[in-house]
Amino acid sequence: MSNNNPSFHITGLIAAPFTPFDAKGRLKLGVIPKLVKYYKATGVSGAFVCGTTGEGASMSNEERFAVAEAWGAAMKGSGLKLIVHVGHNSLPESCALAAHAEKIGADAIATIAPSFFRPEGVDGLVEWCKKVATAAPKTPFYYYHMPSMSGVNVATADFLPLAAKNIRTFGGIKFTHENIMDYGLTLAAAGDKYDILFGRDEILLSALVMGAKGAVGSTYNYASALYNRVIAAYNAGDMKAAAAWQLESMKFIQAFCKHGGMNANKAILGLLGMDCGPVRPPMTPITKDKIAAMKADLEKIGFFDSVRP
Amino acid sequence: MSNNNPSFHITGLIAAPFTPFDAKGRLKLGVIPKLVKYYKATGVSGAFVCGTTGEGASMSNEERFAVAEAWGAAMKGSGLKLIVHVGHNSLPESCALAAHAEKIGADAIATIAPSFFRPEGVDGLVEWCKKVATAAPKTPFYYYHMPSMSGVNVATADFLPLAAKNIRTFGGIKFTHENIMDYGLTLAAAGDKYDILFGRDEILLSALVMGAKGAVGSTYNYASALYNRVIAAYNAGDMKAAAAWQLESMKFIQAFCKHGGMNANKAILGLLGMDCGPVRPPMTPITKDKIAAMKADLEKIGFFDSVRP
Amino acid sequence: MSNNNPSFHITGLIAAPFTPFDAKGRLKLGVIPKLVKYYKATGVSGAFVCGTTGEGASMSNEERFAVAEAWGAAMKGSGLKLIVHVGHNSLPESCALAAHAEKIGADAIATIAPSFFRPEGVDGLVEWCKKVATAAPKTPFYYYHMPSMSGVNVATADFLPLAAKNIRTFGGIKFTHENIMDYGLTLAAAGDKYDILFGRDEILLSALVMGAKGAVGSTYNYASALYNRVIAAYNAGDMKAAAAWQLESMKFIQAFCKHGGMNANKAILGLLGMDCGPVRPPMTPITKDKIAAMKADLEKIGFFDSVRP
Amino acid sequence: MSNNNPSFHITGLIAAPFTPFDAKGRLKLGVIPKLVKYYKATGVSGAFVCGTTGEGASMSNEERFAVAEAWGAAMKGSGLKLIVHVGHNSLPESCALAAHAEKIGADAIATIAPSFFRPEGVDGLVEWCKKVATAAPKTPFYYYHMPSMSGVNVATADFLPLAAKNIRTFGGIKFTHENIMDYGLTLAAAGDKYDILFGRDEILLSALVMGAKGAVGSTYNYASALYNRVIAAYNAGDMKAAAAWQLESMKFIQAFCKHGGMNANKAILGLLGMDCGPVRPPMTPITKDKIAAMKADLEKIGFFDSVRP
Repeated sequence: MSNNNPSFHITGLIAAPFTPFDAKGRLKLGVIPKLVKYYKATGVSGAFVCGTTGEGASMSNEERFAVAEAWGAAMKGSGLKLIVHVGHNSLPESCALAAHAEKIGADAIATIAPSFFRPEGVDGLVEWCKKVATAAPKTPFYYYHMPSMSGVNVATADFLPLAAKNIRTFGGIKFTHENIMDYGLTLAAAGDKYDILFGRDEILLSALVMGAKGAVGSTYNYASALYNRVIAAYNAGDMKAAAAWQLESMKFIQAFCKHGGMNANKAILGLLGMDCGPVRPPMTPITKDKIAAMKADLEKIGFFDSVRP
Repeated sequence: MSNNNPSFHITGLIAAPFTPFDAKGRLKLGVIPKLVKYYKATGVSGAFVCGTTGEGASMSNEERFAVAEAWGAAMKGSGLKLIVHVGHNSLPESCALAAHAEKIGADAIATIAPSFFRPEGVDGLVEWCKKVATAAPKTPFYYYHMPSMSGVNVATADFLPLAAKNIRTFGGIKFTHENIMDYGLTLAAAGDKYDILFGRDEILLSALVMGAKGAVGSTYNYASALYNRVIAAYNAGDMKAAAAWQLESMKFIQAFCKHGGMNANKAILGLLGMDCGPVRPPMTPITKDKIAAMKADLEKIGFFDSVRP
Repeated sequence: MSNNNPSFHITGLIAAPFTPFDAKGRLKLGVIPKLVKYYKATGVSGAFVCGTTGEGASMSNEERFAVAEAWGAAMKGSGLKLIVHVGHNSLPESCALAAHAEKIGADAIATIAPSFFRPEGVDGLVEWCKKVATAAPKTPFYYYHMPSMSGVNVATADFLPLAAKNIRTFGGIKFTHENIMDYGLTLAAAGDKYDILFGRDEILLSALVMGAKGAVGSTYNYASALYNRVIAAYNAGDMKAAAAWQLESMKFIQAFCKHGGMNANKAILGLLGMDCGPVRPPMTPITKDKIAAMKADLEKIGFFDSVRP
Repeated sequence: MSNNNPSFHITGLIAAPFTPFDAKGRLKLGVIPKLVKYYKATGVSGAFVCGTTGEGASMSNEERFAVAEAWGAAMKGSGLKLIVHVGHNSLPESCALAAHAEKIGADAIATIAPSFFRPEGVDGLVEWCKKVATAAPKTPFYYYHMPSMSGVNVATADFLPLAAKNIRTFGGIKFTHENIMDYGLTLAAAGDKYDILFGRDEILLSALVMGAKGAVGSTYNYASALYNRVIAAYNAGDMKAAAAWQLESMKFIQAFCKHGGMNANKAILGLLGMDCGPVRPPMTPITKDKIAAMKADLEKIGFFDSVRP
C-alpha cells in the first residue's frame, strides 16, 4: 500500500495558530487575515489549526469547524498550506472533524492520540489513526506525536512503517518531543516519502542537522523571521551563526516562561499588534502586570528586533 | 451561599454503568432495562452514567444524550437516582451536556476535571466546576475526583469549602482515589450537608469506617449483593464478616485484572447474562479466549455464588 | 522451606525513630533513652531504626552501626523489639549492615528495595532480599515496601509467596503504601505465619479492619497514645470512636504538612521535650518561625492533649 | 569568587567505564589497562569512573576506592584525564569518596544529586554540591546532571551561576539530559570558563551544533572512533556526513536496546575482546542467548566495522 499522493509534502515553517478569543471566551475570527499576512511576511509556509496551541481540545466541534473555515478562507490563494488538527478523545467526534476538514479542502489533517483512554501500543495507535484517516479518504493524514500532552509515547520509528502499511493516506508525523534519537531514526525510515515535521521550536537546529525539512510550532506564529535565519545559516554551512540564532530563540522562550506558559506565549501576539485575546478555561489568563513584566524582559534581550521580518 | 436543595442526598451503592455497544461500536441501548431490573434486585440505589466506566469520553455528545435519555426512561418510577456525568475537555460541550441532563430531569450531574489542559490549583478547578454547574442551574452538582484518570490531584478537603461557597448547586464529590486521609478529612468537612461518594469498590470498607454513606463504582453493576453484605456486616458491628466479604471483592478484582482492565470488567456483565458488548476504541476489546480463562478463574474463587442476590 | 522461627512475631505499634542530630549534623545519641522511656509510657512495642524516618540513607554505615547500637543498649530489658533497617543501594554495604545488626542482637532486620538501580520484577526483588537476608542468617527478615520512596512497586500479594519460599528467615513485610487492596490480599496470604506491618499511620484504621496486627510509623514516636485509642475502640467494636480518633490523627498530620514534610514531623519531637535536632542534608531544616506557626496550629486542634498518654 | 584553576578544562570524548566484575560480582580489575589502551587507540581523552555506567551506587566505598586507584594507576602517563564520581545518598560517604579521589590525584570529581532524599530547588542542590566539593578542596568539581536517574531536575542554566558563585572549585557540569534548550542556555552562561560536558551519546551532534567541547558517555568506551568521525565531519563543515555517522550511533543503540539496557551495553565490551563481566545486583545480567542475538543484530548493521579505530 502507498501514499495516495506521493507528490504531496509539507515543508518549511508551519505556524500552529493560537485561536483568537474575546474577553468572554467567544471566537473572534476577524484577526485571522492579519495573521495570514504576517505569516507571508515572515516566511511561514502553512498553518496547523486547532491543535494544542490552538486550544482545539477546549472548543466545541462547531467552533472547530468555524475556525477551520475561517483559516481556509483567509489563506485562499496565499500559497500557504492548511493542516487541520482533528484529534479528539471520541472517535465519532474526531471523524466528524476529519470529514469536515476534507469538505472545506484542507491540505492535510492530523491527530494527536486520545488521552483519556489511550490506545495500547503501536498497533492500537495505528488502528485509531486508521479509523480517523478513513473519515477523510482524500486528504493526507499526519500523526501528531506529543507524549507530554497525550501520555502516549510510542517510538515513532516503530510506528512509521506500520502506519505507512495500514493507512492509505499516511503523509507523516508531527513530532513534538525532545527525543532526537527517535526523530533521527524516524526521518531515516521516512526517506523522501513521508514528512517528519519537527515540533520543538527551541531546538529546531537539532532537527535540521538530522535532516528535517519542515517544522510546526507555536513560536512560528511570530518569530519565523528569526527561525528562517537559523535555517538559512544552516543551509549556508555557517553553523556558528545558526547556533547564535537558535540561542536567541532559546533565550526568548526562557524569558516568557518566567511569566507563564501558553497564556504568556499567546500574549506575545498582542504585543506584536495581532491580539488573539486570552486563553480559555481551564487555562488561566495571564494578568496585565505579568504581560508588562514579560514585555520588559523581552525588550531587554532584543526580542522585538530579533523577530522583525 | 448554600445548597439550593439541602434535602437532596445520594446514598447507598450507585452503579457506574458500562455503556452497551454492539460489535461495530454502535449504541445498543436495549439491554438497559435489564440492567435496571438487576440493580433493583441487588440493592443498587442509582446509576452514574457516561462516566469513566461508561466510556463517556469515547462517545459523541449526541450519543451521550441518547444514553442519558435511555437510562432516564428505563429508571422512571424505579426509585433509582440518575446522575449524568457531563465532563468534557471543552467547556461549551460540557455545558451542553449539563443543560441536556437538566432538561431530561436527571437527579444530579457530575464532572471530572478536564485533562488535556488542566485547571490551575483549587481555584481554577472550582472556577471550571462553577461554569459547568451554572449550565444546569436547578440540578445538584458533584465534582468527580479521579486523579488517576484526570491527572488533576487537589486535596478535596481544600476543594470542598471553596466549592460549597462558590457553586450554588454544589452537592458533593465522587471520590475515586486511594487517599483515605483526604477522604476522611473531606467527609468531616462535609458533615451532613454534602455527599462524599466513595469510588474505590475494592476498599469500600476503608471508607465505611470513616463514615461513608454512599459509593459509586463499576463493580456495583453486578456485585452489589456482595457489597451490601459488607455494609450490613459493618452496620451490625461484625467487623470480621465485613472484612471477609470485602476480601471476596478484592479477590475477584485481582482475578479479572490478570486478564485485562476495563475490557475484562465489562465482559463480566456478559457472563451474567447482561451483555454490554465490547469496549470502544481507543481501548482494545478482550478476546474470547481471555474471557473463557477469566470465567474459569472467577468460578474457582466462587465469584458467581458470591455476587448472587 | 519455612520461617526458621515461627513463633517470632512483631505486633502493636512500632515507632520509626528519627535519628537525633545536633545543629552541625553530628549524631547526638544521648536523647535515645528518653525516647525509649516515652515509648514505654505511650504503648509502643518496638523501634524500626535507620529507616526512612531515621534518615538511614543520609548516614554513613559507621553512623548506622552506632545508631543501631545505641538503640540496642537503650532498649535492653525494656521488652521493646529492635528492628534494624539495613537497606542500601549497594549490596555489600547492605550485607555489612545486616551482619552488624545480627551481631548486636537485633530482633529483626528489614530492607527497602534499592532505588538508584532497581530490581526487575518480583523475581529480581526476591533475589535481592535473599542476598541481604543471608548476611544475617539467624535474624528474621522483613521486606520494607515503600514505592513512593523506592520507585519499586510490585504487588506484595505476589511477592509474599515467592519470598516465603526462597528466604529462609522471611518474617513478613512493612507495608508503607496506600494500596489497601494489595494490603488485604497480602494479609490473607500471610495468615498467621508472617507479619504484614502497616506503614501509613494516617489510615491505620483501614488496615485494622482488614486484620492488621502491627504497624510501623513515624508518628508513633510521639502519638501512640492516640493511635492506641483507635486500636482499643476498634477492638471494643466502637467504630464511631475509632473513626473519631483516627480523624484526629489525620487532622494533626494535615496541620504539620502545611509547614513542612519530614523536617516538620521531626520538629514535633522537640515540642514534646525530646529534641532530635534538625534533618540532615539533602533535606532542608525547618525554620524556627515555621516551628512556631506549626505549634500554634497544633495547639488549635488540641494535638498536645490528644497525644498525651 | 572564581575557579581556582581557570586553565583546567575537560574536552573531547570521555568514556564512562563499566566496572569489571567476575561472575560472582567481585571486582576484576585486571582488564583496566586493556581498556586504557583501547581508549588511546580510539581517541578517548579521559575516564569518568564509578558513575552510573560504572555501577558506582552498587559498590561499597572500599570497592570504589579500589576502582578509582586502579584507573589512576592504569592511566598514569597516558595523558588521559581521570574524573572520579563521588556521588552518594549519604553526605559523609560522599565526602569520604571525594577526599580519597583528591588523595590519589584525580583530575576532577563529580557528583550526581542524592536521590533517596532530594535537595530542595537550586539552592539546596548547590548547598549539597558545595559540601561535597569542600572535601576535595584542590580538585575541580563537576555537577553530574541526570534527572532520569536522580529525579532531580533543576534547570542547569539557573544552577550554573549560583554554583559558580558558591563553589570555589566549580569546574562545570556533566549534562546527561535530552533538554537541549537548557544545554544551550547553560553553555552560553558557561562561556570559556566552565565545561558543560554532554552526556547523551546518541544525540552528540545536537550538542556539538550548540557549541559542546566535551562529552561523557558509556558508548565512548567502545565506539569513540565512530563519534570522532561525527566530530571531524562537523568540524569540517560536512553536516551530511556528521548526520550520517550520528545515525549509525542511533542505529546501534536502537539495536542493543532491543535486547536489554545497561546489561546489554556492558556485554558489547565482551564482544570486542575486553570482557567486563556481568552487571551487579540489583540489575539482572543478560543471558548468553540474548548476547548472541544482539551480536547478530549488531553485525547486520555493520556495527563492528563502524566502531573500528
